[in-house]
Amino acid sequence: MNKRFITYTLGNILMILGGLMSLPLIVSLIYQESWVNIASFLGTAIVTGGIGFVLSRTKLHKRTFYAVEGFTIVSLSWIAISFFSAFPFVISQQIPSFIDAFFEMASGFTTTGASILSDVEALSHSMLFWRSFTHFIGGMGVLVFALAILPKAESASVHIMRAEMTGPTFGKLVSTLSSTARILYVIYFVFMMITFALLWLAGVPVFDAMLLAFGTAGTGGFGVLNGSIAPYDNFIVEMILSLGMIIFSINFNLFYLAFTQQTSKAFKSEELKWFLTIIVVSVLLIALNLISNAYGVVASFRDSFFTVASIISTTGYSTALFDNWPLFSQLMLILIMFVGGMAGSTAGGLKVSRVMILLKAAWAEIKQTIRPNRVVVLEYEGYRLDAKLSNTVLSYFVVYVLIFVVTVMIVSLETPNLISAFSTVAATFNNIGPGLGIVGPSQNFAHFSPMLKLLLSFIMIMGRLEIFPMLILFAPNTWLKRF
Amino acid sequence: MNKRFITYTLGNILMILGGLMSLPLIVSLIYQESWVNIASFLGTAIVTGGIGFVLSRTKLHKRTFYAVEGFTIVSLSWIAISFFSAFPFVISQQIPSFIDAFFEMASGFTTTGASILSDVEALSHSMLFWRSFTHFIGGMGVLVFALAILPKAESASVHIMRAEMTGPTFGKLVSTLSSTARILYVIYFVFMMITFALLWLAGVPVFDAMLLAFGTAGTGGFGVLNGSIAPYDNFIVEMILSLGMIIFSINFNLFYLAFTQQTSKAFKSEELKWFLTIIVVSVLLIALNLISNAYGVVASFRDSFFTVASIISTTGYSTALFDNWPLFSQLMLILIMFVGGMAGSTAGGLKVSRVMILLKAAWAEIKQTIRPNRVVVLEYEGYRLDAKLSNTVLSYFVVYVLIFVVTVMIVSLETPNLISAFSTVAATFNNIGPGLGIVGPSQNFAHFSPMLKLLLSFIMIMGRLEIFPMLILFAPNTWLKRF
Repeated sequence: MNKRFITYTLGNILMILGGLMSLPLIVSLIYQESWVNIASFLGTAIVTGGIGFVLSRTKLHKRTFYAVEGFTIVSLSWIAISFFSAFPFVISQQIPSFIDAFFEMASGFTTTGASILSDVEALSHSMLFWRSFTHFIGGMGVLVFALAILPKAESASVHIMRAEMTGPTFGKLVSTLSSTARILYVIYFVFMMITFALLWLAGVPVFDAMLLAFGTAGTGGFGVLNGSIAPYDNFIVEMILSLGMIIFSINFNLFYLAFTQQTSKAFKSEELKWFLTIIVVSVLLIALNLISNAYGVVASFRDSFFTVASIISTTGYSTALFDNWPLFSQLMLILIMFVGGMAGSTAGGLKVSRVMILLKAAWAEIKQTIRPNRVVVLEYEGYRLDAKLSNTVLSYFVVYVLIFVVTVMIVSLETPNLISAFSTVAATFNNIGPGLGIVGPSQNFAHFSPMLKLLLSFIMIMGRLEIFPMLILFAPNTWLKRF
Repeated sequence: MNKRFITYTLGNILMILGGLMSLPLIVSLIYQESWVNIASFLGTAIVTGGIGFVLSRTKLHKRTFYAVEGFTIVSLSWIAISFFSAFPFVISQQIPSFIDAFFEMASGFTTTGASILSDVEALSHSMLFWRSFTHFIGGMGVLVFALAILPKAESASVHIMRAEMTGPTFGKLVSTLSSTARILYVIYFVFMMITFALLWLAGVPVFDAMLLAFGTAGTGGFGVLNGSIAPYDNFIVEMILSLGMIIFSINFNLFYLAFTQQTSKAFKSEELKWFLTIIVVSVLLIALNLISNAYGVVASFRDSFFTVASIISTTGYSTALFDNWPLFSQLMLILIMFVGGMAGSTAGGLKVSRVMILLKAAWAEIKQTIRPNRVVVLEYEGYRLDAKLSNTVLSYFVVYVLIFVVTVMIVSLETPNLISAFSTVAATFNNIGPGLGIVGPSQNFAHFSPMLKLLLSFIMIMGRLEIFPMLILFAPNTWLKRF
């Protein structure tokens, strides 16, 4: 275990985090907020940056760096940034409990959007800004950002990016990883700014438009108003957000292909076709179910489209109180919570590519059983699917189900019914935010015990990092010499 | 597709079924029931046996026989026996609706024990007997029974047994399969008779004891009284049934080993250790949860043990109204519904062996991710686990989850809440019987629409035959020349 390298990287991450806190500081100055807010950001920034500076002075003895170090750095960093980011809320007493603030920040960075706040509008501008800005930082990845700006870590970056990027496979766009990270961040930033501009043009106040753009880009879901998107009551705004959420759930590599004159290649993506098909089918099924339960036709399609886009992209913005929908529609939403967006996007969930591989493996198994002597070949994105990859995805699914089930059992101790327990875990583990029942779109997570809030914070981080980094962090082997 | 062989075997099965109907006929004579009951069994037996006789006259042109024929015969036979067995109930008007009677018989043969009857005690003795006797027939397998008594089908029997026996692997006990089938049936019959004798000695009326023994041996769950086992209110009876249900959920091969002086080998079974561990842990967790919710200590352990034995063995007898238990305990029950008994037993569910292989594959994946360059070896029952087998089990799990999810979605159209929809499918697909919510132990399945009853009947058969035979039956390819 290369502990010095871990300390060094963690130090750099904390320095970056301290630097980023200057943004809410500026917001608090613009809105002429009380000195408490200004002091809480300034103080936290100085302490965080200071600790980061000390840690980053670690002398590196050796450059050897393995997967286990990559996983450890990533999971430690995510816990650390959620920890330090929580202080401004606690110091300013806008979220008095530290565990609540930690939950809120873990929810922010993991782009979950689950909140312990019953009255979001009570927060000051700077706090609202910081809360939503964590979505933007966490969406593409904290360490990917560090890689984009720190040239020193090239040798380690493959392990770090593998641990932080989403999806079952991982590829470079260009020859060096730091350039890949930079390209991804540029696309990400430009798309976010376009979303912001469109929302503003559609009539959303500039502050709200900025925060909603952060939430859309990171597929996070923290809003500005207590009623999420419903109070704007603006069809154009809903369409911008729906399309925005879908776009940010698409593999960013496809945008790179499209921009580099390989548009046809980008449109050939099998995963993209599946993703769009799942969206269309879900919207139709839910709309039909709503209509057959005496909802208006136009409203059914409008709410169904927005909600499906919001849930499958794992954002969690809401216009309709979908916890009042008929059971079939609610279960459709739970189902697409598990699917999530495409690999290599800012969305959570299992990812469309994993669902595809699972279904293909299942289909192959059926064919194989009928014809035991035939060789059944799996195809994925036009290539023969490697048996090792399909096995990895199948095993990932089992680990995923296992953690899900154990967490539901624990959560059931504090929930009144199955749909609440089930959707609490589905909404946090898949980084969506609101669930159904007692964690529905008009509810929040405040009522859980501190222990459970802590557990759900770790479940959110585990979901964002796709399980293994967090498992490895807590495995005793990681910290013993045996590795 | 060797259609003649399928017709020939189906004919034999129907002749056997017609013959078995003489048993309820005798019961109706003993209890001097009305001529309607006698006529309904006699008439059905003659028609069923007659159709069977005609079909069994099919001339066999070729002896070639593949897996697909094995699957097709088994699934066709299970549908056919459920179909013909339903007539006595309809003719006697004790279950007026044919779909209800078909559901009840599919539930009987698959040893599910889900009922559409709100008043079981209203049935006549002969109908009650026939209803429970289907558990005994279906428990070890209808075609396994046919193989045991028909010497002609040796060449085809490997495919048939593979399709009807439970669990991921399949082995012969002795050199010929018909002898293996005979040995299994002898063990099965003797154990059932011991259960009957013990129940009778413990004070259960002789008729009830017989029927409860059928239900225990087949891990079915149809009872004699409306309150299942609760009305007997006899601790000794509960213990006999609990231990009986657990014993019939153990792989029968282990009993064969034990009886042939290889007892130590039987006790070394890894699957057995897991199975017993899961039972102990579940009983403890549920009992603690009940105690912490103000239930009495003794009653908590007593009810917890009986219910866990009943659910994990997929029997479904009840002493406690576990649908009133706290949510955690209810979810524990749902969890062990999926685990089920051991492979090669009469129990349903995923089977302990599959759960073991899933967990081991997941654990290997975690180890592999930490150390990408190390070769991780899976062990199962002391042997190196074949990568092909683990892949088969993983894919089976995905197919299983997929069918489960789609069925829950359909069932949700007729259920008020998630736990009812979820447990309706969990209880039928895993062949348990009672679920939670609107299908709880004091409820029944009468309120579903005819379409849904039909769907759930097929789901029960699919669960009992471990999915593939039914999928293959309904695949268009099966009936086209391409195969």
